[in-house]
Amino acid sequence: MNEVRETPRSIFNFAAGPASLPRPVLEEAKEGLMNWRGSGQSVLEMPFTSTEFRQIYEEAFSLLEELVELPPGYSILFMQGGAYGQFAFIPMNLLRGIGKADYAITGHWSSRAALEARKYGSVNVVTDNSDSGHTTIPPVEGWTLDPDAAYCHITTNETANGIQLSKLPDTGAVPLVADSTSDFLTKPVDVKRFGAIYASAQKNIGPAGLTIVIVRNALIGEARSITPNVFNFELLAANNSKVNTPPTWAVYIAGLVFRWILAEGGLMEMANRNRNKARILYEFIESSEFYHCPAARDCRSTVNVVFGLPTIALEEEFVTRAREHGLLNLAGHAINGGIRASLYNAVSDEAVTALVGFMDEFAISKKSHAAASRSRVALE
Amino acid sequence: MNEVRETPRSIFNFAAGPASLPRPVLEEAKEGLMNWRGSGQSVLEMPFTSTEFRQIYEEAFSLLEELVELPPGYSILFMQGGAYGQFAFIPMNLLRGIGKADYAITGHWSSRAALEARKYGSVNVVTDNSDSGHTTIPPVEGWTLDPDAAYCHITTNETANGIQLSKLPDTGAVPLVADSTSDFLTKPVDVKRFGAIYASAQKNIGPAGLTIVIVRNALIGEARSITPNVFNFELLAANNSKVNTPPTWAVYIAGLVFRWILAEGGLMEMANRNRNKARILYEFIESSEFYHCPAARDCRSTVNVVFGLPTIALEEEFVTRAREHGLLNLAGHAINGGIRASLYNAVSDEAVTALVGFMDEFAISKKSHAAASRSRVALE
Repeated sequence: MNEVRETPRSIFNFAAGPASLPRPVLEEAKEGLMNWRGSGQSVLEMPFTSTEFRQIYEEAFSLLEELVELPPGYSILFMQGGAYGQFAFIPMNLLRGIGKADYAITGHWSSRAALEARKYGSVNVVTDNSDSGHTTIPPVEGWTLDPDAAYCHITTNETANGIQLSKLPDTGAVPLVADSTSDFLTKPVDVKRFGAIYASAQKNIGPAGLTIVIVRNALIGEARSITPNVFNFELLAANNSKVNTPPTWAVYIAGLVFRWILAEGGLMEMANRNRNKARILYEFIESSEFYHCPAARDCRSTVNVVFGLPTIALEEEFVTRAREHGLLNLAGHAINGGIRASLYNAVSDEAVTALVGFMDEFAISKKSHAAASRSRVALE
Repeated sequence: MNEVRETPRSIFNFAAGPASLPRPVLEEAKEGLMNWRGSGQSVLEMPFTSTEFRQIYEEAFSLLEELVELPPGYSILFMQGGAYGQFAFIPMNLLRGIGKADYAITGHWSSRAALEARKYGSVNVVTDNSDSGHTTIPPVEGWTLDPDAAYCHITTNETANGIQLSKLPDTGAVPLVADSTSDFLTKPVDVKRFGAIYASAQKNIGPAGLTIVIVRNALIGEARSITPNVFNFELLAANNSKVNTPPTWAVYIAGLVFRWILAEGGLMEMANRNRNKARILYEFIESSEFYHCPAARDCRSTVNVVFGLPTIALEEEFVTRAREHGLLNLAGHAINGGIRASLYNAVSDEAVTALVGFMDEFAISKKSHAAASRSRVALE
């Protein structure tokens, strides 16, 4: 039970979240689990007020500041509750006296964000791609923005639908607020363009249970009175996100991931790698008659590649067979079905090559099978 | 960096939270970190919808049901946000049409709970021990209960103050709601006595970032409209606490802790051990002229033993010297100062013996020093 078996080399994880972590991070986390930096303590057991944990905590913040090149006038907040929690906490904290906000509905998650926001204020839908089955995004120039909105909420990448904003809307003086859960840290981010950016950790940051918010300081301080203290941006900013006990282990792992990204070359390098991985997979799908991609070309996600096979039965078989080949977690989001391969930072080129190789073999086996069936039919 | 050093045997952790975990749990967690049950996957990387994680998740729930002997008509909810989050979510979910609740103020944390509840309804303070510096608890028979309150909120153990309720108030038809963060699972619990019990994990359950709520089903379904979906008890109960991604790693560790408690003999055995550990420490303090315990005898906590030394300078020296002896995290809560030794389930008899041994030596060294100083003064 206690012996740690080596992970088979052939396992590749394409989960949408919680998702693959960099191997060096897991290796280093062994030390954090049992005996952090020779302290005799597990990070899991450290009080958050201890000297040791303070070091872990401050390192995580400063590494993230470095990664996103945090401009002056912004705060990084570490919270709990996931991005779905933020669907409530963003309006609680940022509707201020204005009481109304713009929401772009571009997929499953932005729809939920808008629905939750209606509990706290009035929501103006600036665009809605539901009619397309969330497969295209109308050009931002045509969105019906409200110049008096408290903020304009966008979802930079729709994890369930496999589509991504290729251009930010010009919202003028209205602060842009982005749910960047699935593409945060996958490419450089110009923080100054945003009033707030948030992301739950379980895609490119670390373990589920940590949510990161980057917010312009000028927007905080007018939270509604019903905002719980532990989710009040002003209190969090003033207390270095320690209004109550932070999710210490998740912060520790996030810090290791931040350091790994910096060591690998930073966000520009991540962007290059992610673009390349996605290109390989999309090009293969395009070249195939067996697979198809529902997302419009100009908004295909670099991080969640959604595709389909000729039938649902074939899709189910594909997921099962892929699993037998060590290619894990390829089933699409429950609302869409189909296949989804998430290619976050920690998913290697090797994983994508293995996936494309398997896809090719699977398609050929099915075509031969179909051809054989047709031959049999012809002979009968 | 990657080599895991053995933890020195002499390290004992008396942290109030995040706190000591059972050694066998940490040993087993190595497997979960690198390769869970030979799956080739880290628990950190598993999607919460995967077959593997579903197994971990359902095991954690059923082990907890077994531990607390969950009666029919109750739901266990796994949440994020800490007990401090519940200070808001309890009134949001349980004030219902009634809009007012009873709060017993018995220490630092119940004071905060009452303050947060005022955001959502009217608070009737049934008892308040502030005048005593939170060192005694007035008898429950004298509390000014409101028979029409939506619920009566108590804090079964005050972590910062080292006092614990020895008797539950008889609230009649009014549901009793308990913040049991620091003594949950340290002794048997009669769930039927409560409308709701909640506890954040980082004392006796597992990592910070998981909060457990046990709630009577009859009380849910009337959450205020401003309740965030991810903290709505009705939605959580209906969706097996998977309204959004649960804090998967924390749930995994909690499951290991639950199994460890059961293997060790369950909650009755924990109660016996904890009573014994506390008795040894309190008896030593009582027998000493050097140490003193501010808490009244009839409400001394079995899990957070708060005590003082003759001067603040001596207390600071005590904490430093103790640390050099491998006795960690003995400083009191910031609001109180002094010394606090938390004796949760995972703190061994050996740890308490080591602490008492050190306390004795420290006191003797100071008395000899004082005597020597006096002698010098006399000689001069």
